[in-house]
Parts: sequence; C-alpha cells; structure tokens
Amino acid sequence: MDSANKVVGSTVSSSNKPNWKLKSVVIAALTLLTSSQSILIVWSKRAGKYEYSVTTANFSVEALKCALSLAALFRIWKTEGVNENNRLSTSFDEVSVYPIPAALYLIKNLLQYYIFAYVDAPAYQILKNLNIITTGVLYRLILKRKLSQFQWTAFFFLFAGCTTTQLNSSSDHVLQTSLPGWLMAVVMALLSGFAGVYTEAIIKKRPSRNINVQNFWLYIFGMLFNIIAIFIQDFDAVVNNGFFHGYTFITVCMILNHALSGIAVSMVMKFADNIVKVYATSVAMLLTGIVSVFLFGFNISLAFFLGTTVVSVSVYQYYIGSSAKLQAMSAQIRTERV
Amino acid sequence: MDSANKVVGSTVSSSNKPNWKLKSVVIAALTLLTSSQSILIVWSKRAGKYEYSVTTANFSVEALKCALSLAALFRIWKTEGVNENNRLSTSFDEVSVYPIPAALYLIKNLLQYYIFAYVDAPAYQILKNLNIITTGVLYRLILKRKLSQFQWTAFFFLFAGCTTTQLNSSSDHVLQTSLPGWLMAVVMALLSGFAGVYTEAIIKKRPSRNINVQNFWLYIFGMLFNIIAIFIQDFDAVVNNGFFHGYTFITVCMILNHALSGIAVSMVMKFADNIVKVYATSVAMLLTGIVSVFLFGFNISLAFFLGTTVVSVSVYQYYIGSSAKLQAMSAQIRTERV
Repeated sequence: MDSANKVVGSTVSSSNKPNWKLKSVVIAALTLLTSSQSILIVWSKRAGKYEYSVTTANFSVEALKCALSLAALFRIWKTEGVNENNRLSTSFDEVSVYPIPAALYLIKNLLQYYIFAYVDAPAYQILKNLNIITTGVLYRLILKRKLSQFQWTAFFFLFAGCTTTQLNSSSDHVLQTSLPGWLMAVVMALLSGFAGVYTEAIIKKRPSRNINVQNFWLYIFGMLFNIIAIFIQDFDAVVNNGFFHGYTFITVCMILNHALSGIAVSMVMKFADNIVKVYATSVAMLLTGIVSVFLFGFNISLAFFLGTTVVSVSVYQYYIGSSAKLQAMSAQIRTERV
Repeated sequence: MDSANKVVGSTVSSSNKPNWKLKSVVIAALTLLTSSQSILIVWSKRAGKYEYSVTTANFSVEALKCALSLAALFRIWKTEGVNENNRLSTSFDEVSVYPIPAALYLIKNLLQYYIFAYVDAPAYQILKNLNIITTGVLYRLILKRKLSQFQWTAFFFLFAGCTTTQLNSSSDHVLQTSLPGWLMAVVMALLSGFAGVYTEAIIKKRPSRNINVQNFWLYIFGMLFNIIAIFIQDFDAVVNNGFFHGYTFITVCMILNHALSGIAVSMVMKFADNIVKVYATSVAMLLTGIVSVFLFGFNISLAFFLGTTVVSVSVYQYYIGSSAKLQAMSAQIRTERV
C-alpha cells in the first residue's frame, strides 16, 4: 500500500505536469505490478481452484480504485484546497465520455466467455497478442500521434517477440482457428485496443485536470458496468452464496494488485501513452517468466529465451528511434562524413 | 547453364564497376540458387539415400567453378584483349592470401564431423544461425565497415527471425548442449564468418581486378584443399569404388547448383557485401520453406510464419536504415516540425 500511496500521492507536488522522474516511476510501477499479477495467478492456480465469482472480484477492484482515488483527492484538497482542476463536480459534456471505456471492456469480457466455443486455450493465448497490433493501429488512427518508422518496426518486433516467447507444441492450434474464431479474436483485440486509446484520449484532453478526478469518474462507471456484469453472469451465485463467497487471502491480494495496476495504467496514460503501456506490460510478462523459473522451477524454453531477446532489442530500438534521437544520429553521421 | 553464363558474362560490359542493376541481378541469382539448393537436398532425401562421397562432390564443385571462371575469362580476352586487370598471372604477394578462405572452410568442414558427438541434429540446426551473428561481428571488426544502429538491430532481428522459423518441439535440445558443444559451434560459426569476411576483403582489395581472375585463384585453392579432404576422409572409398561412385542425375544437379551459387556468392562479395549475402541466403531459406509447401505438401508452422514476417520486416528496416536514408528521414522530420 505504501508504494501505491506514493504513486497516487506524487501528483500532489507535480501539479499534473508530466516530468521525467514521475514518468519513470509510473512505468516501473506498472511493470512490477503487472508482473506480480501473473505470479499471483500462477500461485493461486497452484494452491487449488478458487470458488469466488470473477465479476464480484472485478467490481471490488473498481470500488477499491475509486476509494484510493478519493483518498488521494482528500489529501490534495487539504494541502492545495479545492480548485478548478481538482474538484469532483464537472459538466455533463466532460463526464459523458467516461462510461465508454468501461462499456467497451464489459463487451470484451462478455465476448471472452463465447470465444472458447471457437478457439481453444493455447490458440487464444497466441491470439491475445493481436492486442499489440490493434493498439498500435488505433493509436495512429485515432490519437493521430506520430512515431518514427523505426519505432513502428520496433513495435512490430515487440509483437513478434511476445508471440515467440509463447510458442510451444500446441501453439500451432491457432492455424486451425475457424473464421468466426478469428473474427471474434480480432473484435476483442479491437475493443481492448479502442478502450485503451479512448481512455488516453479522455485523460489527455484536459491536461491540467488532476488525474485522481479523472480516475474517480472512470472507476465510478467501471463499478456501474461491473454491476451489470454481475447481473448477467453471477446473479444466482451472489444471491445464494453471498457477494464475497470463496474469497481467500490470495483473492484479496489479487484484488489489491489489480487495483494498484489499474491506477498505474491511468498514470501511464496521463504521463506517457498507450505504446509505453504495451511495452511495460510486455516486459512484465517476460519478468514473470524469468521470476517463475526461480519461484516455481519452470524451465525456460528456447522460444522464451529468443522472444525475450527480441523484446529487449525492440525496447532499445524504440528508445533510440524517437524523432529527436534520429535527428541527433543524423547530425552525427553528417559530422563523421565531413 | 544459360542464366549462369549471363551472370558470369555480365561483368564483361560493366568492367568491374559495381552498379545498381548488376547488384540486383547477383543478389537475385544468389537467392534463387540457394533456395533451389535446399529444394534439391529435400528432393534427394526423398528419393532415398545417396552413396557418393561428399568430399569428391565438393571437389567437383570447385573444379566446375574454376572451369566456368576460365570460360568467362576466355570470352573477355577475346573481346577486350589481355590487360592488367584480367590477366591470370599475378604477384606472389597478391596470390598468397587466396588459400586462406579455402583453408578455413576445410577446417570448418572437418569439425562438422566431430560436432555431432557433442550436439544432436535439431540443436545443430539452431546453432548454425550463430553464423549470422559472427558474420555481423567480424564484418564490423575486420572490414571496419559502418552500418547504422537500425541496420545492426535489423541484422539482429534477421538472426532472431531465422531462428524462430526453425523452432519446433525438438529445438529445445539446444539448451542441453554441453560446453564443448557450444565451443565447437561458436568456433565453426567464427570460421565460417571469418572465411566470408576474408573473401570479401581479398576481392574488394583490388576493385579493378576482374572478378573471374579473383574467382579463378579462389577456386584453384578450393580444389587443392578439397583434395586434402578427400585424402583425410574418403581415400579408401575413392580407391576402391572410383571417384564418381554413387553419382546420379540429382548429384550432378546439386553440383551444378552449388557451383553456380558459389559464383553468385563471389559476385555478391564483389558488388555488395557479407551482410547482403546473409540476407540473400536467409530469404532463400524462407523461399524454400514456402515452395516446399506447394512441392512437397509441407505444413507451415506458426513459428515459420512468425519468423518469416520478422525476416521480412528486418529486410525493410535494413533498407530504410542506411545512413543516407536516415538523413533524408531526419530532414523530413525537421520540415514537418517547421
């Protein structure tokens, strides 16, 4: 909780102006939280199957994020007072776009239940990487932000590297995927990419607005749409067994972790962008793999090793491929030639 | 034979000055010849095991290349007359370096017989890709030629893409390779990379010297060192069964193909470089895979498909990553900002 308060609280002093230090902290937080998320999942699988309903857990995550955003806001109001940028009340015009990401995620999560009729689990694992491609394409088309050609090829190599790490004897199943399976996978990747890009658009539209206010509104609608999900999927279970049925210590850890990583994602959207978010979560996936070797005695496959080096070189290339760095490099070449 | 004569003969008119058209023709020739080489190997394996000795076949390849170079030279002498650049006689100083690549290849080929005591076949298939890395490193260290940072990362992705195409359920064997196995694989990759880079150094040192003269001397020593290999490995078989024992139509096709691709490699060294050679042979490997699907009904694996797209994007990035193109791109960025 300490580190989370630090992350949430650190916007107090920076008054929403992105800076290099804050950017690094939120990227590192997202990477570490996402990485420990997967480790918690492996850990919970090892400890046996849990009986809690996923929709109530998702609701709890949204509620916790909302509470954390409010707590951060109370601290800010105490030190800075209530002003135009940190007050909760807002116009209908501003608030009307906040439900959209939550609605997109709801549709995507509902689709997830149906896709397994068309796609088997190993194939789905591979198809999930389409998120990377759709995020890149929608980032370019909707946010109209420019990356250099080498950053785009780096981003493609990120996709290829991530997919390579997951290659195993059953991943060829993806080639037997039927047309409806492919369509559903592409639609899900588009929904998830669109939700990410849309969230960034909302958050960046008002740069001076405090991130905790923006988060509060995002999470309020997150709670609302998760209530709908509970009604659709788990109404009977909740009525019969209670809301928190099957929750254990590890469930609580996972909810806490998801809440903190959710806040970190928002921060990355505010102070960096969707491309950086995809990089952070991809690197997290590799960290999980490496940590799992030590924690659970997993074997590292050649595919994992190869994919990890591809992702690492891609991160390096994305960094040196920025327009500013390209200009410096070009000046260097000119000097060497003279 | 027609196309080979064209390639060998085309240096007549260009009088050894590299030009764009010639460069494209030799690169295309190398790609197609290497690709059909592997298809011949698959074809010959399908048709049953052949009983010819590999060393006599290698000698025949060198002899044929030598004969083709001489034939090209005779044509040149007829049209241009004998001059400083196309005469065969030369100084000891110039000729003394020609045996080195052939000697390196001999050592490498001999090592190949011993490495299988330490490395199994699927692991060897993967380890062979180390050639790409050693060629890149030695190209930089010995020839001191500069590539842009994006060309280096592209070259790394070429290595990763080629390795990815070969991933299958047995490629993890490479991780069980013992230290002596690794050392031998690295030494073989270094020998092969060094032979390639050294050949380029020899050929490029005298840009005005006709390539057929340079080839003649390379292949003379190739023949010589292959006679040594015959004595070491196949002396008894040749004495008892004769030199051409076990040769069939397909063996003759393979010898012809190897000879023509050998000449194409020399041409690429003269008019392009080792990096381009590695690109051409890697793309050839992928072409073989694709053609095999149609010829032999092979299935394309996800790994092959993924690796092929990685190699394709790497080719594109290498092309746009040249220093000249970087400068143009940087100027473009500057214009857009103004």
